[in-house]
Amino acid sequence: MTRSLQDQDGIPQPSAKERFAHALTLVPEIATVETRIRSTFKSDVALMREIPEYLLSLGGKRIRPILALLCSKALGAAETTDDIVDIAAGIELIHMATLMHDDIIDQSPIRRHQPSAYAKYGTPGTLLSGDFLLTRAFGLCSRLEREIIEATEQACIELVEGETLEIAVPLGEHTTESSLTIATRKTASLFRLAAFCGASLTDSSDTVKEQMSKFGESLGIAFQIIDDILDVTSDEATLGKRPGIDIAERKPSLINILWIASGDPAAQRLLLPSDPLTEQAFVEESLAKLRASSVLLEAKKAARHHADIATQNLAQALGGDLASLTPEGEALFAVIDFALERVL
Amino acid sequence: MTRSLQDQDGIPQPSAKERFAHALTLVPEIATVETRIRSTFKSDVALMREIPEYLLSLGGKRIRPILALLCSKALGAAETTDDIVDIAAGIELIHMATLMHDDIIDQSPIRRHQPSAYAKYGTPGTLLSGDFLLTRAFGLCSRLEREIIEATEQACIELVEGETLEIAVPLGEHTTESSLTIATRKTASLFRLAAFCGASLTDSSDTVKEQMSKFGESLGIAFQIIDDILDVTSDEATLGKRPGIDIAERKPSLINILWIASGDPAAQRLLLPSDPLTEQAFVEESLAKLRASSVLLEAKKAARHHADIATQNLAQALGGDLASLTPEGEALFAVIDFALERVL
Repeated sequence: MTRSLQDQDGIPQPSAKERFAHALTLVPEIATVETRIRSTFKSDVALMREIPEYLLSLGGKRIRPILALLCSKALGAAETTDDIVDIAAGIELIHMATLMHDDIIDQSPIRRHQPSAYAKYGTPGTLLSGDFLLTRAFGLCSRLEREIIEATEQACIELVEGETLEIAVPLGEHTTESSLTIATRKTASLFRLAAFCGASLTDSSDTVKEQMSKFGESLGIAFQIIDDILDVTSDEATLGKRPGIDIAERKPSLINILWIASGDPAAQRLLLPSDPLTEQAFVEESLAKLRASSVLLEAKKAARHHADIATQNLAQALGGDLASLTPEGEALFAVIDFALERVL
Repeated sequence: MTRSLQDQDGIPQPSAKERFAHALTLVPEIATVETRIRSTFKSDVALMREIPEYLLSLGGKRIRPILALLCSKALGAAETTDDIVDIAAGIELIHMATLMHDDIIDQSPIRRHQPSAYAKYGTPGTLLSGDFLLTRAFGLCSRLEREIIEATEQACIELVEGETLEIAVPLGEHTTESSLTIATRKTASLFRLAAFCGASLTDSSDTVKEQMSKFGESLGIAFQIIDDILDVTSDEATLGKRPGIDIAERKPSLINILWIASGDPAAQRLLLPSDPLTEQAFVEESLAKLRASSVLLEAKKAARHHADIATQNLAQALGGDLASLTPEGEALFAVIDFALERVL
């Protein structure tokens, strides 16, 4: 149930990619958000400016602040206020802090084609920079309304809980349900927060806030599943890092869980201690097997399912009349479709 | 210029230790603070309750919340409000988060006679628990007044900056001044915050808030110098970890900086790469040398200097009339004297 399918009437439709590119033109304020983010990198300690600046310079889709901006506009915000810029910047700062801490936890050498902050600056500086950014994020958010502060705290707690579940529970004890719980907490929590804040700052009703939150959360779950799929189907040039990392790290990704559940004997090796001598061959064989397997189809089906829930909730939040959408409303549907198009 | 010296009039004075023990009886609310701290360890992810609970169970002086409570009472708070309990708990949570992250950075195996959280639970769980506690601390503080939120953000930023300076600048480039800057930021920032919040929540004048902040900061600097001294003069039974850690880790502690500056050729080895084969002997020889050296006297003089500044500012904040101090005012002087008595 993607919007692009609904719209088919014989006239060629723009691709999701084209529609996403158009969506970006509707939020030129993303440059203001980036300036706001950078304005928090102030310190007389050089490393506290340098490490965050390095991570920011690696780029990224900035999908979370884009969501916050688009949601507030789609719900009728007449102008982009300081408040929405603050929370959009705050959410991206939290995301950056978790990238730094994640890279320490996963000992990841590469991020976006470049050495990760962890690889370039080491554990101490990267860990402290993450704390610095988390503090700055709270500094920005604390100026806002009570319900936004509480939602931010809640999202950060869920994020940390999701990452803890990922590392604390052995792969063999995970189920598709627990894998989706991790995706919901570690990834979807900030998507939900971004969409919720867009609704909160436009004084939307509790029902619309709830629908927008559900839209953000479902989109976030779909995004995580799509990331898991791309780790199998994509290549280093596109990913900015080697594929197969979820296999090498025995992550409880939906793909790994579905693969183990499929009964394929090769997947059982994910549950055994890794053997450095044959590990690289195992990852490559696994990728080849998975690319030709029904596991991929199942994961795509799950991504589409959560994207559909996102679509339904977005439609409800925007009033249900899809014929008279604002450009920003259209753009939010384009974000969902673009996410899906990357793997479908 | 300690209070105990001023009071000498031939009648035996209680020791600083006895006066400190009495001070603790004036803040029974510390039990409420501990309950408030524990109330934030709520999560359906077992490890997010277990690791913070483990660190809390290792004990500690709880000097920061005690300071916040005593300062508010000494400035006339009629009752211990929810707000002061929240900020006292929040400050201790921030302290706990930094202990977790510090132990990862320093790879410290032992804290308070027990395995550190890092040694017991590993980097991922300990890192995420630190993020969890930092988030909970901001959750508590965000309910309070604007100036308290801003002071909390500022203290956290300074804390992270101080730790970054400690790891980022080679020991040979440090001076006594930069060593004191580190102590001011990494240790004194939370002491200052605790004292400031006590003044802020009793609607004290800006002058009194400033004097209380200066008292807290100077006490914090003295505390850090005293910690550095105890790392040389104390033993494992008292410290809860092996002495000489600042030597082994080539920390820019005041002791190490003064020792290098003293011209003792043995100290120059601190500037060379460590040799694992002879390292333990070097630490032990260094401790023996330092214990008999004038470096210790210089460091004690510096601790006393900052304790004196703390005493002066506290006296001013409490109105200057030391003859009519409240028991809580007396108790704050006892905290300073007790800190000093540990090394003098």
